Amino acid sequence: MTKTSAGNFFEDFRVGQELRHATPRTVTTGDAALYTALYGSRFVLNSSDDFARALGLHAAPIDDWLVFHVVFGKTVPDISLNAVANLGYAAGRFGLPVFPGDTLEARSTVIGLKENSSRKTGVVHVHTTGANQRGETVLDYVRWVMVNKRDPASPAPETVAPKLPSAVAVADLIVPPDLDLRGYDTGLAGSEALWEDYRAGERIDHVDGMTIEEAEHALATRLYHNTARVHFNQHAEAKGRFGKRLIYGGHIISLARALSFNGLANAFHVAALNGGIHVAPVFAGDTIYAWSEVLDAIEMPRHKDLGALRLRTIAAKNQACADFPSRGPDGAYHPAVVLDLDYTVLIKRR
Amino acid sequence: MTKTSAGNFFEDFRVGQELRHATPRTVTTGDAALYTALYGSRFVLNSSDDFARALGLHAAPIDDWLVFHVVFGKTVPDISLNAVANLGYAAGRFGLPVFPGDTLEARSTVIGLKENSSRKTGVVHVHTTGANQRGETVLDYVRWVMVNKRDPASPAPETVAPKLPSAVAVADLIVPPDLDLRGYDTGLAGSEALWEDYRAGERIDHVDGMTIEEAEHALATRLYHNTARVHFNQHAEAKGRFGKRLIYGGHIISLARALSFNGLANAFHVAALNGGIHVAPVFAGDTIYAWSEVLDAIEMPRHKDLGALRLRTIAAKNQACADFPSRGPDGAYHPAVVLDLDYTVLIKRR
Amino acid sequence: MTKTSAGNFFEDFRVGQELRHATPRTVTTGDAALYTALYGSRFVLNSSDDFARALGLHAAPIDDWLVFHVVFGKTVPDISLNAVANLGYAAGRFGLPVFPGDTLEARSTVIGLKENSSRKTGVVHVHTTGANQRGETVLDYVRWVMVNKRDPASPAPETVAPKLPSAVAVADLIVPPDLDLRGYDTGLAGSEALWEDYRAGERIDHVDGMTIEEAEHALATRLYHNTARVHFNQHAEAKGRFGKRLIYGGHIISLARALSFNGLANAFHVAALNGGIHVAPVFAGDTIYAWSEVLDAIEMPRHKDLGALRLRTIAAKNQACADFPSRGPDGAYHPAVVLDLDYTVLIKRR
Repeated sequence: MTKTSAGNFFEDFRVGQELRHATPRTVTTGDAALYTALYGSRFVLNSSDDFARALGLHAAPIDDWLVFHVVFGKTVPDISLNAVANLGYAAGRFGLPVFPGDTLEARSTVIGLKENSSRKTGVVHVHTTGANQRGETVLDYVRWVMVNKRDPASPAPETVAPKLPSAVAVADLIVPPDLDLRGYDTGLAGSEALWEDYRAGERIDHVDGMTIEEAEHALATRLYHNTARVHFNQHAEAKGRFGKRLIYGGHIISLARALSFNGLANAFHVAALNGGIHVAPVFAGDTIYAWSEVLDAIEMPRHKDLGALRLRTIAAKNQACADFPSRGPDGAYHPAVVLDLDYTVLIKRR
Repeated sequence: MTKTSAGNFFEDFRVGQELRHATPRTVTTGDAALYTALYGSRFVLNSSDDFARALGLHAAPIDDWLVFHVVFGKTVPDISLNAVANLGYAAGRFGLPVFPGDTLEARSTVIGLKENSSRKTGVVHVHTTGANQRGETVLDYVRWVMVNKRDPASPAPETVAPKLPSAVAVADLIVPPDLDLRGYDTGLAGSEALWEDYRAGERIDHVDGMTIEEAEHALATRLYHNTARVHFNQHAEAKGRFGKRLIYGGHIISLARALSFNGLANAFHVAALNGGIHVAPVFAGDTIYAWSEVLDAIEMPRHKDLGALRLRTIAAKNQACADFPSRGPDGAYHPAVVLDLDYTVLIKRR
Repeated sequence: MTKTSAGNFFEDFRVGQELRHATPRTVTTGDAALYTALYGSRFVLNSSDDFARALGLHAAPIDDWLVFHVVFGKTVPDISLNAVANLGYAAGRFGLPVFPGDTLEARSTVIGLKENSSRKTGVVHVHTTGANQRGETVLDYVRWVMVNKRDPASPAPETVAPKLPSAVAVADLIVPPDLDLRGYDTGLAGSEALWEDYRAGERIDHVDGMTIEEAEHALATRLYHNTARVHFNQHAEAKGRFGKRLIYGGHIISLARALSFNGLANAFHVAALNGGIHVAPVFAGDTIYAWSEVLDAIEMPRHKDLGALRLRTIAAKNQACADFPSRGPDGAYHPAVVLDLDYTVLIKRR
């Protein structure tokens, strides 16, 4: 009996296959404190029990991206241990808020397979669902990864390409139940800019930069139970593609979100992950900056006290974002860009 | 509408101005664990719920300096984002103990303004109050900072110089209510040296040294929501004053307090911050040592089971403190000194 | 009155001497989160409150090695501040599970003394017991350390050599009370390999490697209140034996245990520490790998749902363990080996 796992290879996946991922994880105020120490996020709803209670919640919910990382982390041993690249996300939807003490589990279904022309790798699409201890969905999303084949000679599966939306539909966005924004205090939240103040096409430089240390991203990635080897093993990576450890892409998402506080302080909840690309690798010693474009300012039917903003947040390394580095008309990214993320936040209305 | 904040400049302050700082923060056992990991503090009251309960408290209170850092951190975006130097502290008084689950907020009043002769900067005095979710004061203090002017040509305000005490008066020191030291166990606290054993003028070398890593001070400073750029952004600081990130001065205070356990183990609570100077900058890789002088051994009226010690703790970098490096008769500090802190602790009596 | 402690020297110990160690420590979910971030351990019982409740416990217990480190840390200021080497462990037995909120204390009895022929050092054996706030034992073990003499000329004590078992007897292993494995879910635990699948003599390469950063081991060791100077003070260690800070041996134990998940996922509890040697020093930048040999597969009388495995786990630095680096017939270790640990785990049966 083989007791150690080398992870799944492309040949191991079948469309329709269901994977129940190991190691449920109770998320605590300890995790929340570490998350604050790692990114310095200041969004008030996640920071203050008192503020959360004034809005009808029983405690400050866990940061949305921490929920994402924990759910994502569970999938790594089964999905992406032999991945070459994490290619994209779609249809990501945050469900019920997660509170300290909740236990998260994750399951995935394989929804797409396509062998690459090299015959050495293939692309796997999975739909992953994270649930709490009552089985209630806290997050679901699609991601696709390029995975090594065990044997280039093994036959290609039938290609199945899932249909994916370009963005989560407004009607599908979930507003935390019991949330009542009448008690929302913009002074405590840190900004007077509300939903009405944002316009589609507007671009916001988040100003600040944050340098990443080797210990920081390794602490983060272990905290999420993410076991991808490239993040942890300098002895092996010294001989690898980059000669050094690669930082987990989700670490950059969390940094970009934390930096976006300066400009989006009232965007109190991430409701959807519409898409995203990790454009370039990030290494210890790099400094991350970010800017955002408002893609859409969306009225939320049935919610007069909040609206949604569809955002595109771009993170760059070792370059401030005052000039909004982006993607050229030829589709090529500015060389400093490391992340291009399309997501939807909920924000207080007047 | 400007959505991002570049912080206030000297011209933005008015005497009497009240600032309500953003992002209240619920302090948890997660923060306490991180604080232990960052400094290794061993003061028993903050370490053991069981010990705290034996003294009449319902749980181990949060370390006093962690409370200070959280309150201080809230003020940074409004007070010192454009500061050149953090010049001093006075009249700092710790109020009610903070317990895990309490939510801290901070407000400040501008109490002094003085433009510098260069006309490029000015000194701002603020009186800051930290309160818990019931509005009870947990800390108040005065600090003054040198802040850049936005425009050297803008007119100077009328100079207002606040009157500040050289030390918090004994009558103003707050002993945590419900505290009953009859259950105090010196064996568990780690020392038999009590209030009666300390004499004014006595000097104590705290022996040990602690080296600071870049990841450590950055984790700490983000944990406190302190957004001062000099601590985080190597890309920008490489071109800055020191060519590298500067360590938050409060990090040195916490290290010095933790080191002072070796010599002051029964000084279970910091009651006052009388004054303090960050004498020289500290950088990652520096090793901090500390020594203390007893400035005064103070009887606490109405408290037979405890007394106070007014202490001067000096921290030095990359030099042990067996020779008590200090300030010369010419007022010049020994080149190794980085912190000169005047504060008052409560300590068990016989 | 001397207020600072320089630790005990060999002359300060007497056989039969009882030491009550300072600074009881309440262990929290904050400590557990940090432990996950430091080692990435994925054993399900320590990760999920929900899983623990399904087995009859009221919450996820604290990781066994975190309990060990906290108890061990308390003993350092009294036992090993002047130690030259931590020589071995024996008769270590984990007692009642520790839950978040429990407060740990430690006591030790000196059970052996032997001066070395150099007359500069001696070996001290202590029996240490860790207890919770109700006085219930959570861990007891013997360790022996080589401690400096204050004065080589001081007379040697009578040699006392304690009798130590080569392994904890099966009848002495403690199964957590109330534990009922009927609710154990191997899918969530991450492996189908159960007690019946392991055979004495079997060797398992745990595959993965983990690089240690300076900030990581220092955070860990401070978290445990372990005050041994060699781990923290680069300024002093630059002139010391290795020219750099030495990593706490327990840090390697925890890494090896976390790595052993890949191969031993259902080994949900460490029940005994039979022995162990820190073979060689480890420094920041080193990458730790591990492999295990099953020394014995033990039936547990009165427990049909679980068995025990006596394991020997060897950790190596900067070398993968596919070739099982070990000790040669001449008794010499492979130069990559840093830890040779003999311990007993409980594991689910079919």
